[in-house]
Amino acid sequence: MSGFDVKYAEYQRLFEERLENFCNKLNCQPQILKESLIYSLKLGGKRIRPVLMLSFADLLGLDKNNVLNFALALELIHTYSLIHDDLPEMDNDDFRRGKPSNHKVFGTGNAVLAGDGLLNTAYSILFTECFNGDEFISASKYICDCAGINGMIAGQSADLSHENDEEIDENILDFIYLNKTAQLISASCITPSILCKGKYYSEIKTFSRDLGFLFQLTDDILDVEGSFENVGKSIGKDVAEGKYTAVKLYGLEKSKVRADLIADRCIKMLEGIKGDTGFLKEFVYFIRQRIL
Amino acid sequence: MSGFDVKYAEYQRLFEERLENFCNKLNCQPQILKESLIYSLKLGGKRIRPVLMLSFADLLGLDKNNVLNFALALELIHTYSLIHDDLPEMDNDDFRRGKPSNHKVFGTGNAVLAGDGLLNTAYSILFTECFNGDEFISASKYICDCAGINGMIAGQSADLSHENDEEIDENILDFIYLNKTAQLISASCITPSILCKGKYYSEIKTFSRDLGFLFQLTDDILDVEGSFENVGKSIGKDVAEGKYTAVKLYGLEKSKVRADLIADRCIKMLEGIKGDTGFLKEFVYFIRQRIL
Repeated sequence: MSGFDVKYAEYQRLFEERLENFCNKLNCQPQILKESLIYSLKLGGKRIRPVLMLSFADLLGLDKNNVLNFALALELIHTYSLIHDDLPEMDNDDFRRGKPSNHKVFGTGNAVLAGDGLLNTAYSILFTECFNGDEFISASKYICDCAGINGMIAGQSADLSHENDEEIDENILDFIYLNKTAQLISASCITPSILCKGKYYSEIKTFSRDLGFLFQLTDDILDVEGSFENVGKSIGKDVAEGKYTAVKLYGLEKSKVRADLIADRCIKMLEGIKGDTGFLKEFVYFIRQRIL
Repeated sequence: MSGFDVKYAEYQRLFEERLENFCNKLNCQPQILKESLIYSLKLGGKRIRPVLMLSFADLLGLDKNNVLNFALALELIHTYSLIHDDLPEMDNDDFRRGKPSNHKVFGTGNAVLAGDGLLNTAYSILFTECFNGDEFISASKYICDCAGINGMIAGQSADLSHENDEEIDENILDFIYLNKTAQLISASCITPSILCKGKYYSEIKTFSRDLGFLFQLTDDILDVEGSFENVGKSIGKDVAEGKYTAVKLYGLEKSKVRADLIADRCIKMLEGIKGDTGFLKEFVYFIRQRIL
């Protein structure tokens, strides 16, 4: 394993421990509600949001224990968004991370409630954090706003509104990418900065919005070039449904060139931050490499 | 108008002003997201949760301005729960307050997002309140937990799980009523107490759980005896679908006797609180009277 892989695995393990502990203590009725929450939380995934948050905590010299509950809340919010997004009336995806989507296992009604439950529980965790001081309140509110109607939900709504458009407008595409995907990724990176009274706030904001954009761009390229085995969800669906993606607008090759440009910008922004940014640079390549 | 009606109208006006101001300032894209949020918020209703919160603020000598944002957040949460509850995969209701349900107007995908958006916005409002001090954090967390997987969502989940049961179990029925309905009503009453460092906390908790139970009980009786005009939603649906209600378990007459007993208990509990509880007593009769 490379140094990057070792570090990634360490962050991931730290987060998985926190998640495991949360799931073990989770106590709610009826049984199907509990099962449906845990099912989606344990579907796995790369945990890129928690890993990013932990690595920024390290970079800024913050005790990682201070951000573990924020990472947990953010992963709950991310998981809720996937459950609702997979619903038949939304993106209608039967698979997620190689396993049946929540609504395929528990039914659509229960999946709606599982999503609601995860979102609500995320904020219950964050309200508890608020007792630790004003920075903790600021960070909680920041995450909430990134997930909200001027953040992720706006992006999902725009995505849904434009799914049958013939022509793709670059501004709308940017709006969808930046909100649907980049906002939560950005929140993971910025939370440690807010807890450190805004240290490198604007650099991290610029970096993380680009990184989130890059992530969605590579995701769309993978929808064309990936396989079910390495992506874990239905492939070729975007194209088949004529979805609003960069690949449809720019074509495959130009999309890859754009990915390179954005990755370069991310690296440059990291160079403006003092401290050991090695892991984060490798992280950018790791996202970029998904499409090599 | 009776004294009760005048006071009720005054509380309602105060809340509607706050809501109107919120809607006017609401700024989000795309347009359909904004419209769908405002559509459901402005469908009206009796605003019983905000009215209860304001009246308890008065009773405890709390400045009503201190609770208006809590009342707003709670009404947003209540409204989200109605939108998701009306979805075809949940309760499948085409009407709400005499008008087409959110998903009938905007489609199911947008209705899922409108609900998500209202829930998320409610917490954004509450995180801002948290800066006002620890009692404000406690009250916010309390509301969040009443709405959550050990509160309202648990009740909705149990309701959904048991909708096709042949036999009704009294314990499960109580669980559904207390969680699905009573938790948010209880949160409205208890918020002012938490802001007053727990004044009459246990009396108000007992009172409000009973009141919430009474509200759901009268709702189910109205489903049998009411009309579309005075209820604003489809009538006779519970019976037609064999839903889990007190009427199905006890029959109509015994359900009314039970409603009387609970109303009496509410009145008694109010007598243990010093101050002018006249409005709240009338409020209990107002709920009870819906089925006279």
